[in-house]
Amino acid sequence: MSINRQIVLKSRPVGIPQPAHFELKTSPVPELKDGEFLVENHYLSVDPAQRGYVNDENNYAPPVPIGAVMRAMAVGKVIASKHADYREGEYLYGWFGWQDWCVGTAATVLRRVDPKQAPLSTGAGLLGINGLTAYLALHDIGNPKPGETVLVTAAAGAVGSIVGQLAKQIGARPVAVVGSDDKGRQCVAEYGYAAYINYKKPLEVALREACPTGVNVFFDNTGGEIADVVYGQMALFGRVIQCGTMSIASWVPTPIGPRKDREVLTRRLRVEGFVIFDHMRRYDETADKLAQMLASGELRYAEDIETDIAQAPQALVDVYSGLNKGKKLIKLR
Amino acid sequence: MSINRQIVLKSRPVGIPQPAHFELKTSPVPELKDGEFLVENHYLSVDPAQRGYVNDENNYAPPVPIGAVMRAMAVGKVIASKHADYREGEYLYGWFGWQDWCVGTAATVLRRVDPKQAPLSTGAGLLGINGLTAYLALHDIGNPKPGETVLVTAAAGAVGSIVGQLAKQIGARPVAVVGSDDKGRQCVAEYGYAAYINYKKPLEVALREACPTGVNVFFDNTGGEIADVVYGQMALFGRVIQCGTMSIASWVPTPIGPRKDREVLTRRLRVEGFVIFDHMRRYDETADKLAQMLASGELRYAEDIETDIAQAPQALVDVYSGLNKGKKLIKLR
Repeated sequence: MSINRQIVLKSRPVGIPQPAHFELKTSPVPELKDGEFLVENHYLSVDPAQRGYVNDENNYAPPVPIGAVMRAMAVGKVIASKHADYREGEYLYGWFGWQDWCVGTAATVLRRVDPKQAPLSTGAGLLGINGLTAYLALHDIGNPKPGETVLVTAAAGAVGSIVGQLAKQIGARPVAVVGSDDKGRQCVAEYGYAAYINYKKPLEVALREACPTGVNVFFDNTGGEIADVVYGQMALFGRVIQCGTMSIASWVPTPIGPRKDREVLTRRLRVEGFVIFDHMRRYDETADKLAQMLASGELRYAEDIETDIAQAPQALVDVYSGLNKGKKLIKLR
Repeated sequence: MSINRQIVLKSRPVGIPQPAHFELKTSPVPELKDGEFLVENHYLSVDPAQRGYVNDENNYAPPVPIGAVMRAMAVGKVIASKHADYREGEYLYGWFGWQDWCVGTAATVLRRVDPKQAPLSTGAGLLGINGLTAYLALHDIGNPKPGETVLVTAAAGAVGSIVGQLAKQIGARPVAVVGSDDKGRQCVAEYGYAAYINYKKPLEVALREACPTGVNVFFDNTGGEIADVVYGQMALFGRVIQCGTMSIASWVPTPIGPRKDREVLTRRLRVEGFVIFDHMRRYDETADKLAQMLASGELRYAEDIETDIAQAPQALVDVYSGLNKGKKLIKLR
């Protein structure tokens, strides 16, 4: 335990962070103070949202300082504790960073993970922010009715792969937007999607064919030019879940695109931003529901696992390029 | 009653309709058939929404055909009837068009107007779609809490002048966006606004000064460049009421502007389109509330009245130029 490998932010990226913006450092693990505990990270999470943690832009949290460990969620095991609520041997999901060990405090914990409930890795994906986002955003904002069309971008990703299955369970008709026919076929075969659209082909016609009565719920993880086309085919009283903006390479300077006010007004759309960290009080209850579905065979998930911590920055680039197949994780032990 | 003057659509405008797109025609009043009644129009309504009725674009209703009477709301009196529910002497508010007389059917009626409840003209404004829009959109979508900042564009207009007063009644802090200091002073003196911003001066700084804690509710009647600045100063969990797009001269081709996905996401905004015609079942109840406020002196309204039907097309241009002071009406008798 003497050497703690850490992926540290070396310089501030504009746009999508690249490996050159990070470096691997080592440092000793500090002594625990009262109220702290030591987490041994097992699975590091790689998430599109991490771009927002390092860009010097408006976000829902201040940016990671230069020289600091990269902000990341992880699932780990408490191996020493000076906090009465967190005991040795417990598994936790929290803000433990891209590193081997993390000195945690209560504020860094997102939820406790029960390794008997589901495979440990799911604590960072299906039962972590990805599954929770899929479930809560789809139900709270999207609220699809049976028979309604739910269009999902990044549909083969960690969130989209769950959204398709949940939408199908409700009796809605999920349609996937993906960047390759391979992923599209996977969406239909494995994630409950009724159809898929490869956005690298002409989108407007494909969308009209796949969603002949319009899009009732648009679960948007990417924004940008795909969304521009979708707004033109939203159904009356459609709901747009603004869950991510993965397709926008940089927000500096602010990119321009077609104004959507007219569609919002005349189609009476409701567009709403969703950030999972607003909903922490519902994490346990929601994760339990997803775990039950998993246990009963109603839900499947995919993971794309690497084992070299040094590859974490490249893994993030890959996620932005759509190269991952399912939830991207770095397994450390 | 022999000659019915009608403002007819002569050619299809792109963008804001001009007088040249219309012509004044006369025609005899047809015989009533069963189920019809004859309305003598008293007040013709002039509304920004009428642009959408004539443009060949996506809207919430098909466009007015060339050669047809201009679609417009009006308050009028039933002077002959072959419909059991609509009796001679009754006053109605409905789709009676820019003309002297209209052959009405049940489908053309929006609500009955009681001339003893309030001045007849208010049936087309304060107790018509303008007041109803202000009340329902503000409460249903905006839902401002006491102390929250409510920013309103076209604040001195037929809708905005009511929104300010209603927001103040709730204990919220309404701030007006207007095109002249004259109108701004009127907003503060008469319509309950705590402050105003003249959008013809540098907007970003003025907005920061007038809304130091950000905008909680953005009641937007104009869209466009003003909205671009406002999104950058929305408070977390802010609500945007997309009620009109008056500042956009034309939607063909689709105008471009800065993408707002990032603000929507990171500030967890909720943006919703509002069209009053979705809420007809609540017209009477809501108009009664507004009439009570008017009777008790809690509410005031302004009207800008012309009397020449031939001036109706120019009046619409004036509304788009912000030249009206209050609800624009053509009084015919």
